Amino acid sequence: MLRRLARIGVAREDFARGSSPLARRLRRISALERREEARAFLDAYHDATGASRDQRRRRWAEVRRGLAREGFYEHSPAELAFGARLAWRNHGRCIGRLYWESLEVVDARALTSPEAMAGRIARHMAEALGDGRIRSVISVFAPVRGTALPGFVESPQITQYAGHVRPDGSILGDRRNVEATRIARSFGWAAPDEPGRFDLLPYFVRDDRDRRTMFALPPGTVREVPIAHPACPDLAALGLRWYAVPCVSGMILTIGGIDYPCAPFNGFYMCTEIASRNLADRDRYDLLPEIARALGLDPAGRDPLWRDTALTELNRAVLHSYRAAGVTMLDHHAASDQFMEFHGREQAQGRQVAGDWRWIVPPQAGGACEVFHLRMRNFHPVPNYYTSRADDGLRLMPWYGDRYRPLPQRALDRVRRRWKLWSRIAW
Amino acid sequence: MLRRLARIGVAREDFARGSSPLARRLRRISALERREEARAFLDAYHDATGASRDQRRRRWAEVRRGLAREGFYEHSPAELAFGARLAWRNHGRCIGRLYWESLEVVDARALTSPEAMAGRIARHMAEALGDGRIRSVISVFAPVRGTALPGFVESPQITQYAGHVRPDGSILGDRRNVEATRIARSFGWAAPDEPGRFDLLPYFVRDDRDRRTMFALPPGTVREVPIAHPACPDLAALGLRWYAVPCVSGMILTIGGIDYPCAPFNGFYMCTEIASRNLADRDRYDLLPEIARALGLDPAGRDPLWRDTALTELNRAVLHSYRAAGVTMLDHHAASDQFMEFHGREQAQGRQVAGDWRWIVPPQAGGACEVFHLRMRNFHPVPNYYTSRADDGLRLMPWYGDRYRPLPQRALDRVRRRWKLWSRIAW
Repeated sequence: MLRRLARIGVAREDFARGSSPLARRLRRISALERREEARAFLDAYHDATGASRDQRRRRWAEVRRGLAREGFYEHSPAELAFGARLAWRNHGRCIGRLYWESLEVVDARALTSPEAMAGRIARHMAEALGDGRIRSVISVFAPVRGTALPGFVESPQITQYAGHVRPDGSILGDRRNVEATRIARSFGWAAPDEPGRFDLLPYFVRDDRDRRTMFALPPGTVREVPIAHPACPDLAALGLRWYAVPCVSGMILTIGGIDYPCAPFNGFYMCTEIASRNLADRDRYDLLPEIARALGLDPAGRDPLWRDTALTELNRAVLHSYRAAGVTMLDHHAASDQFMEFHGREQAQGRQVAGDWRWIVPPQAGGACEVFHLRMRNFHPVPNYYTSRADDGLRLMPWYGDRYRPLPQRALDRVRRRWKLWSRIAW
Repeated sequence: MLRRLARIGVAREDFARGSSPLARRLRRISALERREEARAFLDAYHDATGASRDQRRRRWAEVRRGLAREGFYEHSPAELAFGARLAWRNHGRCIGRLYWESLEVVDARALTSPEAMAGRIARHMAEALGDGRIRSVISVFAPVRGTALPGFVESPQITQYAGHVRPDGSILGDRRNVEATRIARSFGWAAPDEPGRFDLLPYFVRDDRDRRTMFALPPGTVREVPIAHPACPDLAALGLRWYAVPCVSGMILTIGGIDYPCAPFNGFYMCTEIASRNLADRDRYDLLPEIARALGLDPAGRDPLWRDTALTELNRAVLHSYRAAGVTMLDHHAASDQFMEFHGREQAQGRQVAGDWRWIVPPQAGGACEVFHLRMRNFHPVPNYYTSRADDGLRLMPWYGDRYRPLPQRALDRVRRRWKLWSRIAW
């Protein structure tokens, strides 16, 4: 009966899969939709690699058989690498997509025990950090296969700071991680005797039998940068710091209808992420009044723009500190320029850029960045990364662009675009 | 035949109305849609005034007759005032809607000659300015009636600065107004002998027979504020200034299916509108490098955050100057707080707030304003203000909210909301 349902386009795993935190986050697509996504992805891959007609036909027959038999097919390592990069290029919320082709993809699908996964993640963090010139790396672990859920990392980032609740109810550290800190303690995490604002939390792996294991990164894997201001020594006295490598582990990579719930990836930081959000947001570190006082401003005074000054100086301090430490970091103006370059290159290739204006425009001096004045639309193409089907996974679907325009028309388009790109560079 | 089309829901004016800049901007709605909007508006009006069933029935019969006969009905002065205020409350792009009920509505529908309109506009500007404590005023001129288009103001704002093209091709003044300046010159506007960066432009009225007339506001009507920084005298030496009252004249007011293309309204400025956009945008005054140099920063230096500092200090200067001159102005943090207050009050009344996140969040220190973290949705309700059917007029339609929830449920909702509001105030 399930086979029959599959044939008429209902995903059979919807019937068989139980409820778990991960199952609730996974996209639900019908068997026909999965088939469509697989086809669209393979076409894109074969176009990019210049595969022959025969190769295409053979691969599609394999994939189609796998999908019909168990709703699954295995990506070749090359397909996986291409898909992970494409997913980055397609992700509408990322401003730093200019170097999407340089993403290093590590195929870790064979590692399924929590210990092996944690080992790979530790190596990932070390490779990404290097000597401070951060490389963008993704480690892809096992995909979802029918009703079987693989192990995955529960924490949204590999590196995070603890949030300790003090006896008076106030919070020391990152407010967002209060619950994660409580869970870690209940798993026996030994918080420092003297809890601080920047205590590294362990992360959790939930294996394929739904058991949690706690892991801490080996000492020396995480590099932290103390924050100092080039001109104001009082700011360094606050003892702020942040880690060098942001490694997102809470997003699901979807390629050609196959979901990889464990695919931690890292990039490097843009200064506003730390200075204008993590350290400044009221539900994170809420440090603006403290920073303002260190800068000699009065948060209770008549000048309402003390926040703006504190934000700018904190950004300056973060940028200065990372540069001084030799750790890769981008300021938001350079990031905006990079995105404009990416946008131009994509258009010259005849591709539209999916962009979510609210995420692309920096939270600081937005109007002064060119991206503020760019029209964007997020059409949620696949392959992509998503957090949950309830949120950003909701509208993911293949985007064909002008694939079905007549050939001569497309050739003409290409000439026009090349000309546009050329004249853009020349003038 | 046209009558018959009207009866089946096709707007007969679509056949008869020619093409003109205004006709192309007006919304196109069918006769049935117009009727629906009229009904929804009258219901809201009668609910607000507590009209009796008999009054409601009589008024609706009148309106229905008018709509059936010529697709038009006349708003009573009270309906007009209520509608204009409601349109403000509904406008998703305005952060300053807390005082929507205090909008002063001037019924100028009888004034149709360009001269009479210009006289009213001059009085409007003087009333709004007063002694510097700016009042929000709207002057509503004649509506569109069937195929007859009334006179309207062509300029997007009543007060604007000229943009002069210098012999070498560079632009002195506001880049956005280069074309308007050219047209004004061709109409005989005498630009100052020594063109400056802040020369007030005349505005244009296009009358009901499509003839343009140019008007300048009488001397003394426009108050300008010279921009000086409290701590940096070099900034005052740049000779920047801006006008006190922003009066938007390019938007169409739509109430209950009737469009008022000439309804200039004013509010007061939020500092970022002048400092982070008008004076800073590259396609406006593009003054950031100049400001940075005046502040002793080096735009070509190694610090990429000179833009952030220049923006903050320019905002500080603008805010300081308007305050010193006794002219009403809001900073973006206060505006954000006001919007949160408005949002809370509306929800306590059981109403949802239409909000366009991209317009509500200030272009400066966005993340530090509470509105940044608020979920918003713009459902484009009517009555509203719009610029063109091609843009923000596209999706306008009545929004019924929970109007059709069962009565006992709605009563319970109201108790809950009152309680929520009360507890919000008390704690």
